[in-house]
Amino acid sequence: MTTADRFHGVLAPVITPFTERLAIDHDRYASFCRWLLGEGINGLAIFGTTSEANSIGLEERMEATDRLVAAGIDPAVLMPGTGACALADAARLTAHATGLGCGGVLLLPPFYYKNASDDGLFGFVAELIERVGDGRLRIYLYHIPPMAHVGYSLALIGRLVERYPGTVVGLKDSSGDWSNTEAIVRAYPGFDVFPGSESFLLDGLKIGAAGCISATANVQGRAIRAVVDGWRSAEADALAERIKAVRATFQSFPLIAAVKAAVAHYGADEAWARTMPPLRSLGAEQRMDLLGRLAALGYELGYASDTAPRRAAR
Amino acid sequence: MTTADRFHGVLAPVITPFTERLAIDHDRYASFCRWLLGEGINGLAIFGTTSEANSIGLEERMEATDRLVAAGIDPAVLMPGTGACALADAARLTAHATGLGCGGVLLLPPFYYKNASDDGLFGFVAELIERVGDGRLRIYLYHIPPMAHVGYSLALIGRLVERYPGTVVGLKDSSGDWSNTEAIVRAYPGFDVFPGSESFLLDGLKIGAAGCISATANVQGRAIRAVVDGWRSAEADALAERIKAVRATFQSFPLIAAVKAAVAHYGADEAWARTMPPLRSLGAEQRMDLLGRLAALGYELGYASDTAPRRAAR
Repeated sequence: MTTADRFHGVLAPVITPFTERLAIDHDRYASFCRWLLGEGINGLAIFGTTSEANSIGLEERMEATDRLVAAGIDPAVLMPGTGACALADAARLTAHATGLGCGGVLLLPPFYYKNASDDGLFGFVAELIERVGDGRLRIYLYHIPPMAHVGYSLALIGRLVERYPGTVVGLKDSSGDWSNTEAIVRAYPGFDVFPGSESFLLDGLKIGAAGCISATANVQGRAIRAVVDGWRSAEADALAERIKAVRATFQSFPLIAAVKAAVAHYGADEAWARTMPPLRSLGAEQRMDLLGRLAALGYELGYASDTAPRRAAR
Repeated sequence: MTTADRFHGVLAPVITPFTERLAIDHDRYASFCRWLLGEGINGLAIFGTTSEANSIGLEERMEATDRLVAAGIDPAVLMPGTGACALADAARLTAHATGLGCGGVLLLPPFYYKNASDDGLFGFVAELIERVGDGRLRIYLYHIPPMAHVGYSLALIGRLVERYPGTVVGLKDSSGDWSNTEAIVRAYPGFDVFPGSESFLLDGLKIGAAGCISATANVQGRAIRAVVDGWRSAEADALAERIKAVRATFQSFPLIAAVKAAVAHYGADEAWARTMPPLRSLGAEQRMDLLGRLAALGYELGYASDTAPRRAAR
């Protein structure tokens, strides 16, 4: 695999639209993915935390990925989340994504047993790779201790990279701990590290990180892409401060619900506000507050749903 | 449903035997379940935390439950764990268990999103009950904050019991916090509370708890049952102290691996020591230490595998 084939730049953990019956709304989903790519997003990390992936049934996740590809999304730009607590389930999701030609998968560690050792986690990943048994497999480790409470230590990453150099090729670091991100980038040259927030994007690019995978790439993808493209320019710092301010505004609310509320509002398509239990949509007051703060920043989202009007016309 | 139909006494979260290829070993599984019932265990909480349930694929869990029933285990004594992060997966497991005639299910809350609100969790359980749509469904809430990091608050339990009085009928409290267990027992008379440890069994029975569901019921079921039957007797305190000492010994090691190691040793059937990644079996030194400490307590386990010799003869 050449460097050119690898993911880089800004990836969006794509929010997932649900129908009233809480099934994935395939038309809205494909439409939004196309719009994100048009905004300059480099890759679609579907079924991440922001996607509410862990709240969606296994079968439905696989079917939805199939349908995105059938709808014309190039599988090479897809990095679906395929981690699960159970080895069998994670292997099934991973084999499916790899077979479909996805450019990579984002792999949560098994996150139920909180006292897992590095040896145990190594065994999990090794067994998964063996079960998938497909040379095209490219794994990006998903390190997100605030949710998973189980993570990939620096030493464990090193063991995996050494044992599976062409397969374990990168990591998303959602620890929120810059010193951890920096340590991984410096320890393993050629290993593609994506901070889980655009707040660390500029600092990351300066030391050799591959880009970022961030919730708010759903709602400010174009601006984040400008930092990716112009990080050596004189304007980079100002651009980076701007995207941090927008992120901070979204982050003062339950983040996933806030991102969905913004898409619903600016896209004039209320269906986007829906979340899957146990998450809840923003309340009316929270939404007003969010939109007011975004307006004060001069924020706009150039998304116009092409799905809602068509549906309304039926 | 009459009181007589409800679970009570000692339930074992049955350990799960795996083959070399990490599939469930159905023969050993049924054999061990039969032995537990012979020891006086009142119910089999299969696919609990001790069972490594969350490490086993969805399909395999359902198939294994089918096969236990086909092997002659009365489904009325089964309380399978059917919780999952995804509503669709949890509903599928729950509908399957209920359709099979299981006496109840033990329901973890969705445990990926750590900031779930009571409203969000109520919505999850309500939607699950609606999707299953089976009047036979009996839910025992599974409160285990040390693993799930998401739990059922006292207020949420009250809302669920009030809204679904014939369906949400009990709870396993693995918080390890006696004051929480006591508060639930006292707040909701008629709601069946099972502490997650035999350490709280005697105190629980005295205030009206239904029994206990405990990892070490796999390896000292007969002794725990003696406390259940004799808790009003003069010997109850001594019996209770004895089972606490055995539990404490197991708990000084990684608990699940230690329980499996004991069954492997006393049952003379090494296959039982196997665990599913990310858990690891006890190392040789740890096992020696465990067995030495158990011997010092005069502990014995009257389990003789009827599976191992048959296999060896092949």
